[in-house]
Amino acid sequence: METLKIIKIGGNIIDDADALDQFLREFAKLEGKKILVHGGGKEATKLAKRLKVEVKMVDGRRVTDGDTLDIITMVYAGKINKNIIAKLQASGCNSIGFSGADGNSIIATKRPVTSIDYGYAGDVVRVNTSTVRMLLEHHIVPVFCAITHDEHGQLLNTNADTIASVLAIALATVFKTELYYCFEKNGVLMDVEHDDSVIELIDTEFYSELKDKGIIAEGMLPKLDNCFHALDHHVSKVFIGKTTMLFDQDSKFTTITR
Amino acid sequence: METLKIIKIGGNIIDDADALDQFLREFAKLEGKKILVHGGGKEATKLAKRLKVEVKMVDGRRVTDGDTLDIITMVYAGKINKNIIAKLQASGCNSIGFSGADGNSIIATKRPVTSIDYGYAGDVVRVNTSTVRMLLEHHIVPVFCAITHDEHGQLLNTNADTIASVLAIALATVFKTELYYCFEKNGVLMDVEHDDSVIELIDTEFYSELKDKGIIAEGMLPKLDNCFHALDHHVSKVFIGKTTMLFDQDSKFTTITR
Repeated sequence: METLKIIKIGGNIIDDADALDQFLREFAKLEGKKILVHGGGKEATKLAKRLKVEVKMVDGRRVTDGDTLDIITMVYAGKINKNIIAKLQASGCNSIGFSGADGNSIIATKRPVTSIDYGYAGDVVRVNTSTVRMLLEHHIVPVFCAITHDEHGQLLNTNADTIASVLAIALATVFKTELYYCFEKNGVLMDVEHDDSVIELIDTEFYSELKDKGIIAEGMLPKLDNCFHALDHHVSKVFIGKTTMLFDQDSKFTTITR
Repeated sequence: METLKIIKIGGNIIDDADALDQFLREFAKLEGKKILVHGGGKEATKLAKRLKVEVKMVDGRRVTDGDTLDIITMVYAGKINKNIIAKLQASGCNSIGFSGADGNSIIATKRPVTSIDYGYAGDVVRVNTSTVRMLLEHHIVPVFCAITHDEHGQLLNTNADTIASVLAIALATVFKTELYYCFEKNGVLMDVEHDDSVIELIDTEFYSELKDKGIIAEGMLPKLDNCFHALDHHVSKVFIGKTTMLFDQDSKFTTITR
């Protein structure tokens, strides 16, 4: 099977215009089939403040009321996504911006209200890959923002890491999918204070050990759970590190395997 | 050749949630190949006010400085476009949102600065139809917002009427293209005070006469010039009226012919 790289970038790149420009120029040159997934960085929070819309976070997740959904739709699907597309086209990389509503690609349901009401937060229930596959076959790169829909006309806010992993899982039937989580560190670290303490390989057994010893910090737990979930569902490889892991042979990063 | 309908909707529909919902439900059912083009209505102006960004208009065109470009990108390509897509999917109409950057579909140049600097306003120079044609062949409806790009990474604000007509012209080589300009009136009126005074047919000769007599009001001149320009460039038919002209056999509207 042909390899498909699914690359998720986070706020450290999106919030830094120069870093984003450089990344997109390198991404454009990356050979083979690829999909880009982006979150919204601090841009949505900045706009919320300017519009005096309260930003509420519970366990690191944004509570998405109606005003907040409008804001993230404007920032993620509008400003960030379209500027990424324009920059990629400038580098000769033909691309199309996607929310989960476009091409009916990613269907979610509004998260049930328990003790916490996350508002318009969507949990993914299904992925339709037909449009994405057609574009990939025609050498057009899909660029996904972190928005899904419920097939009843409602947009929903969905974690960008999850968008990347559900795409990698759904496309694993037709591609050898590789999932790249790019973030601000060189990988999963033995010592969060030292960026050179990268753990090069984590498998299921070692992961248990790292958790038992409390080496994996709280923020990394959902990220790594997500990685193992993807590997459990036929994703070929998962990598965590800086974007350099994609372009620089000598860079260090973390590989996650079963 | 197969018929392709290119339908442009304006502020009177976009600004009215119920009217938009009803239109989209009917649009979804419309048989045959179709493309939807939308402007931004008053939404962009409202957001500009909330963000205290000055709205400057010259001759009915928005002066687009950097902040204004961000606002229209957020509103047109984000909020309005993605909500339209989600609503269409809910009605079983598979669709994908487009700016001119997506699929490198509509390339423009920044309008040269003369006595007036329109800022990031784009005049269309080229249309690439390959991606749009591929989607149409697969029964996916492209939904265009009024944003283009310059192929050097810059998004540009472009009049939605123009987007609709350049698409109709470019696709006229492979489809019998029909252009529908939907707005708040029943068509071009003999007497602007009377909505039932619709002129049913305007050809080149009659248009000259109407202009000479001062019957065509100022706001309609660029719209009609646009229509005749499209007809000069192999667009099959152009219609102006309310959205009812698309769905209701008995409705009155204006047909423009050469």
